[in-house]
Amino acid sequence: MHLGSVKLNKAMRILILGADGFIGNVLYRHLDGEVLGVDNGARKRMVKEIGGESLTEIHKNETIKLDITDYKAIKEIIDSFKPDAIVHLAEQPSAPYSMIDAEHTAYTQWNNLVGTTNILWAIKGTDIHLIKLGTAGEYPDWLYTGIKVPESERITVKYQGKDWEIPTPRYAGSFYHFSKMFDSYNIDYACKIWGLNVTDLNQGVIFGHMDGTRLDYDSFFGTVFNRFAVQASAGIPLTVYGEGGQERGYIHIKNALEAIELAVKNPAKGYRIIHQLTQTHKVMDIAKMFQEATGCEIKSIPNPRAELPANEIEFEAKKLREMGLTTIPMQKEVPNILKAVEGKKVNKDVILPTTQWQK
Amino acid sequence: MHLGSVKLNKAMRILILGADGFIGNVLYRHLDGEVLGVDNGARKRMVKEIGGESLTEIHKNETIKLDITDYKAIKEIIDSFKPDAIVHLAEQPSAPYSMIDAEHTAYTQWNNLVGTTNILWAIKGTDIHLIKLGTAGEYPDWLYTGIKVPESERITVKYQGKDWEIPTPRYAGSFYHFSKMFDSYNIDYACKIWGLNVTDLNQGVIFGHMDGTRLDYDSFFGTVFNRFAVQASAGIPLTVYGEGGQERGYIHIKNALEAIELAVKNPAKGYRIIHQLTQTHKVMDIAKMFQEATGCEIKSIPNPRAELPANEIEFEAKKLREMGLTTIPMQKEVPNILKAVEGKKVNKDVILPTTQWQK
Repeated sequence: MHLGSVKLNKAMRILILGADGFIGNVLYRHLDGEVLGVDNGARKRMVKEIGGESLTEIHKNETIKLDITDYKAIKEIIDSFKPDAIVHLAEQPSAPYSMIDAEHTAYTQWNNLVGTTNILWAIKGTDIHLIKLGTAGEYPDWLYTGIKVPESERITVKYQGKDWEIPTPRYAGSFYHFSKMFDSYNIDYACKIWGLNVTDLNQGVIFGHMDGTRLDYDSFFGTVFNRFAVQASAGIPLTVYGEGGQERGYIHIKNALEAIELAVKNPAKGYRIIHQLTQTHKVMDIAKMFQEATGCEIKSIPNPRAELPANEIEFEAKKLREMGLTTIPMQKEVPNILKAVEGKKVNKDVILPTTQWQK
Repeated sequence: MHLGSVKLNKAMRILILGADGFIGNVLYRHLDGEVLGVDNGARKRMVKEIGGESLTEIHKNETIKLDITDYKAIKEIIDSFKPDAIVHLAEQPSAPYSMIDAEHTAYTQWNNLVGTTNILWAIKGTDIHLIKLGTAGEYPDWLYTGIKVPESERITVKYQGKDWEIPTPRYAGSFYHFSKMFDSYNIDYACKIWGLNVTDLNQGVIFGHMDGTRLDYDSFFGTVFNRFAVQASAGIPLTVYGEGGQERGYIHIKNALEAIELAVKNPAKGYRIIHQLTQTHKVMDIAKMFQEATGCEIKSIPNPRAELPANEIEFEAKKLREMGLTTIPMQKEVPNILKAVEGKKVNKDVILPTTQWQK
């Protein structure tokens, strides 16, 4: 597949960790080069655990069963396959899942941190470029309201009358988001002391669907746009948390693939943060896109998350644009996703949130 | 024991996690109130693993064998003992140990993060005051050279022409130090969303010895002052990493106990950072204290750590002083520790560093 102007070197060897996940599934099939995919089956297990399932059929990739929290296993596959680049998508990706109880918090932070430090140790002393999927959720609503989020590893602020270079301030909005932020620090540090080259793709929320990949619509693994599409299609009200004033960064799944390809093709020198998002929207505005298209109802429900009822956020996001990233606007995807979910059998029981963030 | 002006309420119930460790051992015996101690035996196991052993005899406390990474176990003991305060000392405390290899990095971050999030979940919905031992190493040399470290959870800086309140900037100098920093964020967040009350004691490096507690002098678990005492006493040169210009915060073990008692007696409301240190010293100046006392040699060896060869650091540390914390200057402890180690059989093989931070 050739997305935008990107064309990978045929001879490039790419290892995808988490190749059976939402992004990994479709990335595996569409990257040029010699691609090897590994997965431990966690996404399937977790979605089943919370009672969900993909609404659409999933293409079965020929991936190798491997858990990156097993250091010997990941070290062995890297040493034998000798990739030029590793795309690391093998993390527990759900904020509400990490907030269920103590065990789910522990699982999320253990899986994500240990998986990532294992990869860092495994590529120590090599020239392998690691591309790690991060999240724009490391810049939470309250911290960045009124401040444009810099696409930078460090910023210079004034303090005690001095110019002071500090790590770009982060915080998070769930134990999952903290696990991603902690990963970023571990990666930054490994680049600093070991001279590794790592791209940290701080991604916005994904929207849109591509054939063969998962379409989760439950309250744990379904992202808001896809969940709204399923609700609109099933003729049930779109559930907006609170007033729906939460503004977040977004990116179309196709643009996310394109962004990962661009990162592979333009390797990092040292630690590099890239903002992988093309647009921002407020939740209520997304709901209204579906209301316009289908006439569906919108219903406000109490917000289970600990977040501001409304915020403005603005991201600097020029690095990928300079590499040639294109943009699919959200509005344009509405008819496509409605077509993808049309006539599919929906389990309405899994759509509403069951996990409460606060006491 | 009554340290300084502190006197605990006799009726106070205190749970010590890590009661067989370096601080825990002596804290367990000296706190007033109803004290219950638990420990998983990790310190003993790890010191043995790296070939070390305590130079002095260790008092055997009557502690309960329990691992706080086991959520059900820690939840049960908290629910049945119903402590007023929990002192959390149950972390892997060695920076070099966390840098040995992938497994030791993973163990350190898993043990420290999961142990701490388990406690947070276990005290959710209670009024229990958690006192967690943190580290002044969350403010690394390069970040805070020229900036006085604020004793505060948030600071206000100028950025993009605006006043901006951000979490006090942190970074770290080992995967261990990062685990402590990550703990701090998890704790801060749990206080924010669940209304917990937690004191984060960002402690300087401990020096000094008290009867019955461990005296480790190996390159993994021995802190610099105690290691120098053992080298001076054994008639071998004091090994300074590089030029010895590293300036760090320090506190006498007796003052550390006093500080923990003060924190117990003055509970936090929400998340509270306290700087538990009474003085700063450069490594070479510490070596010279022993040279003056014993005439021993000082030898510079290549620095195994990734740190600045020399730095200045200044900490704000007024909260404990306002509660009545006293100060034992390091110089005054030199004769005491030399007496404690006098005539003891030293294993010289474990003193020199074997772990290299950098590639």
